[in-house]
Amino acid sequence: MTSFTLDELARILGAEPSERPGPVITGVRPIEHAGSGDITYVANQMFLEKLAASSAGAVILPQGLDPGGRSCIKSRNPEADFARLTAVYYPYPAESPCVSERADVHPEAVLGQDVSIGPFSVIGKGTVIGDRSVIGAHVVIGGQVIVGEGTRIFPNVTIYPRVTIGRRVIIHSGSIIGADGFGFCRDTDESGLPVNVKKFHSGTVEIGDDVEIGALVAVDRALSGVTRIGKGVKLDNLVQIAHNVEIGDHTVIASQVGIAGSSSVGRYGLIGGQAGIRDHVAVGDGVILATRVGIYRNVPDGSIMAGSVPAMTRQVFLRAQSLFKRLPEMLDRIRKLERAILSNRKDTK
Amino acid sequence: MTSFTLDELARILGAEPSERPGPVITGVRPIEHAGSGDITYVANQMFLEKLAASSAGAVILPQGLDPGGRSCIKSRNPEADFARLTAVYYPYPAESPCVSERADVHPEAVLGQDVSIGPFSVIGKGTVIGDRSVIGAHVVIGGQVIVGEGTRIFPNVTIYPRVTIGRRVIIHSGSIIGADGFGFCRDTDESGLPVNVKKFHSGTVEIGDDVEIGALVAVDRALSGVTRIGKGVKLDNLVQIAHNVEIGDHTVIASQVGIAGSSSVGRYGLIGGQAGIRDHVAVGDGVILATRVGIYRNVPDGSIMAGSVPAMTRQVFLRAQSLFKRLPEMLDRIRKLERAILSNRKDTK
Amino acid sequence: MTSFTLDELARILGAEPSERPGPVITGVRPIEHAGSGDITYVANQMFLEKLAASSAGAVILPQGLDPGGRSCIKSRNPEADFARLTAVYYPYPAESPCVSERADVHPEAVLGQDVSIGPFSVIGKGTVIGDRSVIGAHVVIGGQVIVGEGTRIFPNVTIYPRVTIGRRVIIHSGSIIGADGFGFCRDTDESGLPVNVKKFHSGTVEIGDDVEIGALVAVDRALSGVTRIGKGVKLDNLVQIAHNVEIGDHTVIASQVGIAGSSSVGRYGLIGGQAGIRDHVAVGDGVILATRVGIYRNVPDGSIMAGSVPAMTRQVFLRAQSLFKRLPEMLDRIRKLERAILSNRKDTK
Repeated sequence: MTSFTLDELARILGAEPSERPGPVITGVRPIEHAGSGDITYVANQMFLEKLAASSAGAVILPQGLDPGGRSCIKSRNPEADFARLTAVYYPYPAESPCVSERADVHPEAVLGQDVSIGPFSVIGKGTVIGDRSVIGAHVVIGGQVIVGEGTRIFPNVTIYPRVTIGRRVIIHSGSIIGADGFGFCRDTDESGLPVNVKKFHSGTVEIGDDVEIGALVAVDRALSGVTRIGKGVKLDNLVQIAHNVEIGDHTVIASQVGIAGSSSVGRYGLIGGQAGIRDHVAVGDGVILATRVGIYRNVPDGSIMAGSVPAMTRQVFLRAQSLFKRLPEMLDRIRKLERAILSNRKDTK
Repeated sequence: MTSFTLDELARILGAEPSERPGPVITGVRPIEHAGSGDITYVANQMFLEKLAASSAGAVILPQGLDPGGRSCIKSRNPEADFARLTAVYYPYPAESPCVSERADVHPEAVLGQDVSIGPFSVIGKGTVIGDRSVIGAHVVIGGQVIVGEGTRIFPNVTIYPRVTIGRRVIIHSGSIIGADGFGFCRDTDESGLPVNVKKFHSGTVEIGDDVEIGALVAVDRALSGVTRIGKGVKLDNLVQIAHNVEIGDHTVIASQVGIAGSSSVGRYGLIGGQAGIRDHVAVGDGVILATRVGIYRNVPDGSIMAGSVPAMTRQVFLRAQSLFKRLPEMLDRIRKLERAILSNRKDTK
Repeated sequence: MTSFTLDELARILGAEPSERPGPVITGVRPIEHAGSGDITYVANQMFLEKLAASSAGAVILPQGLDPGGRSCIKSRNPEADFARLTAVYYPYPAESPCVSERADVHPEAVLGQDVSIGPFSVIGKGTVIGDRSVIGAHVVIGGQVIVGEGTRIFPNVTIYPRVTIGRRVIIHSGSIIGADGFGFCRDTDESGLPVNVKKFHSGTVEIGDDVEIGALVAVDRALSGVTRIGKGVKLDNLVQIAHNVEIGDHTVIASQVGIAGSSSVGRYGLIGGQAGIRDHVAVGDGVILATRVGIYRNVPDGSIMAGSVPAMTRQVFLRAQSLFKRLPEMLDRIRKLERAILSNRKDTK
């Protein structure tokens, strides 16, 4: 069991040592789950009441907030320091580096130092795996792929040929990197009947350093050029990134978002779950897209966009939505009324 | 070929024997597909016309409905009894229990009696597989996982370490249970630039008895504590269940639904396809959410919620939606008109 | 490196030879990426300016458009001919047919001529793989499956038993064909508590010739009968096709679309990303569904349907959406005003 004194934790975080020594800390938990051996955090004074009711052994809290007698570490960003401590207490288990005898590593693949390859994984010709990377069981990596140092790929991930993955990247199970983009052109065959002609995709995918990709994410390869996921980007589960999309550094994208072909999202963005961005649209830097919005046009830097009808009781909704399509008629009637009032006034003058 | 007389089927269902003996039944099919050797069902009198046109050999129908001379079984819930008979006629094939030589079962894993493990599956250290469970090919189960008795896991499923799966659970291919929750805190690095600090997830997932999980479903592990899928819950394909979510017993969730972190859904709910629930929201017991709704607030027990714009012809929609954002202006104009009318009246009095 | 003269390319396309000989062409790229050895295309005169700025070595363009001195091929459908050339320059790599020793092929499976099976793939009893088909690594194909000639299945695909796949089909990684449909009937157990009774699905899936299925797609098997994907249909990533759905020939369906049970879509349709179609709905031939629309009713042939609120700034949206549910009230107030105006008029007459 990992355990540190509060002073040791303060040193790890580069924070000032606690005024009170406090218990030995053996866990890092949010306030509802924290017990007497755990450290937790409060982000602001709204959570002080919860803190008072908690049996947490210690707390990370902002400068200027009163810990109410509890042992504490003062922090510029308590939640971030809490997150840093989860990495201290609950890192991925260190595995002794081992290439499974049951893996199928091409003789012309290049494995760095201290690489792990799980059972039944397949590593293609000319592929390079960086030092200390951990490739789980049942990972299929095509030929000519580059995987950076310290990257971790969970079981059942598929990486198509010629993709580049950065350093310290995490890819969760079931994700597919580098499948063909969805590109078809409708034409007619010899009999004059419509057919969809496939565009073979000669481009690739580049995943920057420190990216995390959730489970069951699809990142398609470019038609030509590169589908690019910038440094530090975080993608939640079941996200769709189409061909030739570019995601700027450190943008965070929640679950089930879809970004269509050739669109771009700037740096430091936040995209809520189930949002969608159509093709050939540019979303600026620092943009926040609310959950479930649909983006059909370019969005300037720093915008906060919303636009998804929230749920209401079925009765209210049915009445409201039946009028939605009658909005043009309602506006017409307002205009007529305005004209009538005006002419009434003239009449009565 | 499975075959039963109508009397035998009535006995299996605990129903009264048929008044007429009827044919030997060799299949169970919906009314459009049923042939002379099949039994079908009608839920209510709206389907009697379809029944008359059907060549079904027998029918399950409610008390009080006239089978029109056809052999029948009377039932309190014809559709449920129909479903029960599909399990009699089309159960998963019984496999003679066998642990594939090509599976990679850790020597410290514990396999119950009559367990099947398919080729290339990987079972981790300390994992326990309950009696009669069937693990398909290419399933990866991490260490310290518990799988209950009589559970069936289809090929290409990934289960991360320390997850608990109940008894008689069905998990379809491609699903990922127990990947890290999506938790990041934005902070600045030494140069003052934004970074996303990862929260390592020390919690787990618990799947109750009699749950069925569709294909390509993601159920993330909790930050701390448990992501819980209650007994008898049914999840369709491509559903996202985030960290620390709780789904109450027997709730049914259709395809492509997303439920964000720390939200809960009560028991006996029904959630339509592509619906979304934001984080930290509590949905009560027995709630029905229509297809594609977005839930942004707590929902009381028993509510029926809707709220997604239905499709209309492009022309109608373009006119209506252009006025959607002008609704505040329209209300203003209505108010002005009301004031004008009022003052007109005063004028004319 | 593949290389052809412009005349050779014209011959491949069945087009007239170029008036100017032009360079040897070694690549096929969209106009932003095309270099001096590449051929590109312009669809219409809107792109002539981009063409002028491009360093493309040659261009495919419509009859009647001036190539501005650049070497060119005239085409009835430049984008389609461009797509055809991507197949000439960037086809999937020809592999020398090989059944991996590490694959698990059932002795009663039937492999056609020149079939490839990748390492660790599992082919079930009685399954037939057509000539020249390429089954990647880690593909699991159940028993009694038929795979047509020249089909390519990428790694980590799962095909359940008894499914039929056509000729020249492409299935990308992570897709699941033939899992159980989502069919449950709510009933009560002996204690009077609700339970969901599963319908076992005895039907199957048929995938037509020349279909392409993206990554992480789920196509469920029918309850009875067939879930059918017509000839030439193209499905993008993360699409959900429920049990008993029928998709007509040559329809194109973008990412994250969901089509619920027993619904049908006609031929030659186009469905935008994240759209949803509820169960038991019939969408006609040649229908275009805009991105993100929800279809709740039958749609006649040739319709163009829209209906998803586009994003707007949060401020504008919050004001507009707060009035959405007050639409019935607004209409009432308009009606009162109209009556008031009418009575005012009478008063003043």
